[in-house]
Amino acid sequence: MITEIALLNIIPGKAQDFEKAFGKAQEIISSMKGYIKHELQKCMEDENKYLLLIRWETIGDHTEGFRKHERYNEWKNLLHHFYHPFPVVEHYKTIY
Amino acid sequence: MITEIALLNIIPGKAQDFEKAFGKAQEIISSMKGYIKHELQKCMEDENKYLLLIRWETIGDHTEGFRKHERYNEWKNLLHHFYHPFPVVEHYKTIY
Repeated sequence: MITEIALLNIIPGKAQDFEKAFGKAQEIISSMKGYIKHELQKCMEDENKYLLLIRWETIGDHTEGFRKHERYNEWKNLLHHFYHPFPVVEHYKTIY
Repeated sequence: MITEIALLNIIPGKAQDFEKAFGKAQEIISSMKGYIKHELQKCMEDENKYLLLIRWETIGDHTEGFRKHERYNEWKNLLHHFYHPFPVVEHYKTIY
C-alpha cells in the first residue's frame, strides 16, 4: 500500500463549495482500480487548508491508472478550480 | 478524533538514524492519554522527507497533555535534532 498526499490550499471564501464538490468527486476515485480508501481532513489552524490522503495498492494505480483514466477529467473539472496555488502531490510508504 | 500532522524534513544523511530513533520514541506518544494511533510515512520522491500523523481524541491531548508531560523532553531529545527546518505542526478534523 502507498499513500498519496496533497496539501490543498483553497481560494478564500470557497471552502464550503469545495467540500460540496469533493463530496461528489470522491465517488470517482473510490471507483478506480487499486483504490483502498481516502480521507479529506480540514486544518483547524487555517480554514482554507485541507489534507487529502488516498491509499492505493501501488503508485501506478494513481499516476497511471487514475491520471490517465477517462474519468480523471471529471475529477479535474469538479476540483481543480478551487486550488491556489496548485497542490504538490507526493507519495509515501509506511515506515511505522 | 483529531489528526496531528507534521511534515518532517530530516538533515541529509540522517534518515536511517532518524528512523531508528523514531522506533524508540513512538513508545512515548503511544503511552499518552488520548492517543489513538500514529503513522510515520516516508516520501517516495524525497528521501529526507517524512509525514507524521498522530490521531488524538482531542486537540488538548496533544497540545496540553503531551507537550506538558514530563516525558515530552525524552521525545524532544530523541528526535528534534534530526529536523531542519523545524517542522510546523497542524491539527486537522475529518470532513470525509
